[in-house]
Amino acid sequence: MEQYTSKQAYESTLAKRALLPEGFCCSTSSLTFFPREKPVKTPLRMNLSLILADRDITLFGAVYTQNRFPGAPVIIGKKRLAQPSVRGILINNKISNVCAKTGVADAEELLGHLGRILGIPGTSFIPSSTGIIGWCLPVEEMKKALPGLVDSLDGSILDVAKAIMTTDSFPKVRSAAVGQGRITAIAKGAGMIEPNMATMLVFILTDIEIPRDTLRQYLADAAGVSFNTISVDGDQSTSDTAIILSSAKKPCTSRDAFKDTLVTVCKDLAEDIVRNGEGTSHVIKVRVKGECDSKTGTGIGKAIVNSPLVKSAIFGNDPNVGRIISAIGDFLGNHQVDLDIKPMIIKMGETEIFSHGAFMLSPVKEEQLFQYLKQAQLNPGEKGYPLHENSVEIEVILGQGEKCYTVIGSDLTYEYVRENADYRS
Amino acid sequence: MEQYTSKQAYESTLAKRALLPEGFCCSTSSLTFFPREKPVKTPLRMNLSLILADRDITLFGAVYTQNRFPGAPVIIGKKRLAQPSVRGILINNKISNVCAKTGVADAEELLGHLGRILGIPGTSFIPSSTGIIGWCLPVEEMKKALPGLVDSLDGSILDVAKAIMTTDSFPKVRSAAVGQGRITAIAKGAGMIEPNMATMLVFILTDIEIPRDTLRQYLADAAGVSFNTISVDGDQSTSDTAIILSSAKKPCTSRDAFKDTLVTVCKDLAEDIVRNGEGTSHVIKVRVKGECDSKTGTGIGKAIVNSPLVKSAIFGNDPNVGRIISAIGDFLGNHQVDLDIKPMIIKMGETEIFSHGAFMLSPVKEEQLFQYLKQAQLNPGEKGYPLHENSVEIEVILGQGEKCYTVIGSDLTYEYVRENADYRS
Repeated sequence: MEQYTSKQAYESTLAKRALLPEGFCCSTSSLTFFPREKPVKTPLRMNLSLILADRDITLFGAVYTQNRFPGAPVIIGKKRLAQPSVRGILINNKISNVCAKTGVADAEELLGHLGRILGIPGTSFIPSSTGIIGWCLPVEEMKKALPGLVDSLDGSILDVAKAIMTTDSFPKVRSAAVGQGRITAIAKGAGMIEPNMATMLVFILTDIEIPRDTLRQYLADAAGVSFNTISVDGDQSTSDTAIILSSAKKPCTSRDAFKDTLVTVCKDLAEDIVRNGEGTSHVIKVRVKGECDSKTGTGIGKAIVNSPLVKSAIFGNDPNVGRIISAIGDFLGNHQVDLDIKPMIIKMGETEIFSHGAFMLSPVKEEQLFQYLKQAQLNPGEKGYPLHENSVEIEVILGQGEKCYTVIGSDLTYEYVRENADYRS
Repeated sequence: MEQYTSKQAYESTLAKRALLPEGFCCSTSSLTFFPREKPVKTPLRMNLSLILADRDITLFGAVYTQNRFPGAPVIIGKKRLAQPSVRGILINNKISNVCAKTGVADAEELLGHLGRILGIPGTSFIPSSTGIIGWCLPVEEMKKALPGLVDSLDGSILDVAKAIMTTDSFPKVRSAAVGQGRITAIAKGAGMIEPNMATMLVFILTDIEIPRDTLRQYLADAAGVSFNTISVDGDQSTSDTAIILSSAKKPCTSRDAFKDTLVTVCKDLAEDIVRNGEGTSHVIKVRVKGECDSKTGTGIGKAIVNSPLVKSAIFGNDPNVGRIISAIGDFLGNHQVDLDIKPMIIKMGETEIFSHGAFMLSPVKEEQLFQYLKQAQLNPGEKGYPLHENSVEIEVILGQGEKCYTVIGSDLTYEYVRENADYRS
C-alpha cells in the first residue's frame, strides 16, 4: 500500500504516471462568468480542457450513465459513437449542462467554434461537462477562451486531471505500459452506476491498436468490474461517462495483456475515486464470497457500503458491527428471502465478528476493531493528497463456493454533508 | 400546522392526547448495568415499560420488519400472533436483543419472571426491544426491576412514550376518539420499511371491539399508507414493530370510521417519527401524481427522500433542484425505462421548477425557494420538542391521472452523522 507524506510526494507519483500515449496532446484554460440562474457577488470560475489526437480516431468507445435525465454531453456523445471517427474531447467543469433548455444547441455551438479554429468539423469532438445541474453554459465566455486553449496544446495530462476536478480532493491519474504502448487514464468525481452528483468522468487514452468493437467490449467489461462496483452515495449522476480513445500508433501484441491492463488501470482509478470521494475519511472494501450470483453478491456489498448507519459508524471509528448485519438482513429481506443465512460468517479485517446467526463480540475485540478502523482513517480536511491506500475490509462469507464480489464505498462524514449542503455557493 | 414555542407547550399538547383507552394501564421503571461486550466507565441506563390489559386480549395484531436478521422479540412476537390471547407488552430500550446467542431464551426468561409476579403465564406477554444490536440483555438486572414496574401500574402512556425513546428528540403520542371509544398510539424511532437502526416501535391501544382478522387487516392497510411510506435513512431495522391491542370494552358503531381513524392516527404518528428523526432539520414530503402504479410512485418518492445529495442540499436551505431530477432519473433508469418523462412537471412548494424536460430557474425563484426552505427548517439541536409542523413539499406530476403517492423523509445533517458516528458511547 502506498503512503503519502505530502501533496508534493503524491503529485510527484502522479507526474510519473502522467505519460501521454503517442498521438495525443492536451491543454487547459480557465474563464470566469456570472450565472444566469443565481445571483452571485463574485464571478464563478470554470476550467476548460482539450484532449486532441494528431489525426482522426476511428477506434473509440464510451459508456454512459443510465440516468433518464442525461446531460446534453451524454446525448451528443451517444450520437458520436455511430460516427466513423472523432478527433478529441472538450471538457468543462462547474456546469454539467443537464436539462438546460438550450443544452444540446449550446454544446454543438461551442464545438463548432472549436472546429472552426482548428479547421475540423465540430462534430469531430465529444463534449463532456460536470458540475451544477440545470444551469446553462456561459457559451460566449467559453468561446472566448477557446483560442487560448488551442494555443497551449503542449500541456500535461496531469493538468487536465486537475482542471476537470469539482469537489474532488486531489487529481487522479493511472497509467500502465502494455506491449509496445501504454494506457493512461484520468478521472474526476466519485462513482459510476451509483456515483456522486459531482459526476464521474473518466478519459482513457491508448496508442495500442484494438478494433473498435473489441475496444468497446473491453471498456464495458472493465467498467463492470471497476467503476460499476464503487458507490459513494448511491446516486447515479446525469453525466457519468467513461470514454476511451486509441490513436492506433502501436500494434497489439496480446489482446489478453491489453484487456488485463485496462482492467487494472480502471480498478486502480475506481479506488482512487472512492478515496477522494466528498469528505471520505475511510475507504470501505466489502468482499462477498460463496456460491451466489452477481446480483446477490454485489447487492449485499452495496447494501453495506450504502447504509448511512454503517457509513457514519465507520466515520467515528465505532465498530458498530450490528449495523452490518442489519444492512445485510434488510437487503436479503427485500431481495433474497430464500438464501440460507445459517452458515454466514462476517469478518472485519482479520477479526471474526459474526458466525452462524450470532455475534462474537468481546471488550478485547472491540478495542482491536477500534484500532483497525483508526489505522484506515484518512483526513478528509487535508486537501491535495491521500494519506495512504489502506481500507476497512469487510468479508461476508455466505458458505461454500469460490465466487467473490467486491464493492468499494466510503464512509459518511461531516465533511460530506458540509460540501453537499451548499455546493453551489 | 401546529407551532410549539417550548418543550412545555409541546408536552402539554401530548398530555391532552395521552388518554388510555378503557381496559389498559401502564408503568415505567429504569435500571443501570455494565454491558458484557464493551468496556464502559459508567454504567448504562435502560428503561423498562409495561402495558397491561385488565383481562386477556383476544383482539390483537402486529406487523414486523422484513429484515432477515430479526431480533428475538420479533421472533417471539410472531409466534404470539398464533395464540388465542395476550395480556400485555414488556418493552425495553438501550439493547435491541438482536443476534445475541441467548436472545430468545433471555426474553422468555424475563417474561416468565414477569408472569410469576403477576400470576399470569409468561407467554401472555409480547416482548419488544430497541437499541444496540448484537449485545445481550442484562437479564438479572432487568428481573430485579420488574417488581417495581408491576407496583406502579397507574402510570401515564406519555411516560411510556418517553421511556421507549433512544436517540429520539421528543416523545410521540397521537390519539383520536372514534364512536364510543378511542385509539391511542405511541411511537419511538424513525422508520418502518426503511427505518433508522434506532428501530421504529409503535404501540396502538383501542377499546373498540373489532374482530381479530379485521383488526389485523386494518393495521396492515394503515401501516402501508403511513409507516411504510416514511424513510429517514433507507435502512430497515432488525426490530421494527407495530402492535395493536383492543380491550373490546366498547362496541364498534362504524367500521369505516374506525378504519379511517386508525389511518389518521398512524399517518400523524409516522410524520411525527420523521420530524424527530436523528438530526432532522427539515421534513420532506414528496407527492407523486399521475397514472402510475404504487411501485413507481412510491419508488420515485423514496428515490428523492433517500438521495444523500437532495437531503444535504435541503439541510443547507440550498434549492439545488438539479439533484431532484437526477434522483428521479436514476430511479427511472434502473426501474422504469419506458415511462414517458416528457410531460413531467416538478414543483417545490408552489413554485414550478421543471417542466417538459427543462428547468425553469431564475434568480427570483432561487431566492423564493431559499426562503421556502428556511421557513420549513427545524432546529435539530433543540431537544425536547419540534418547533412547528411545516414540511418541504415536492410535487412530481407525471402527467394525466388521479393517483397520488406520498412519501415522507428527512434531510441529512451534521447532527445525523454525529449521532450515528458514536451512538454507543
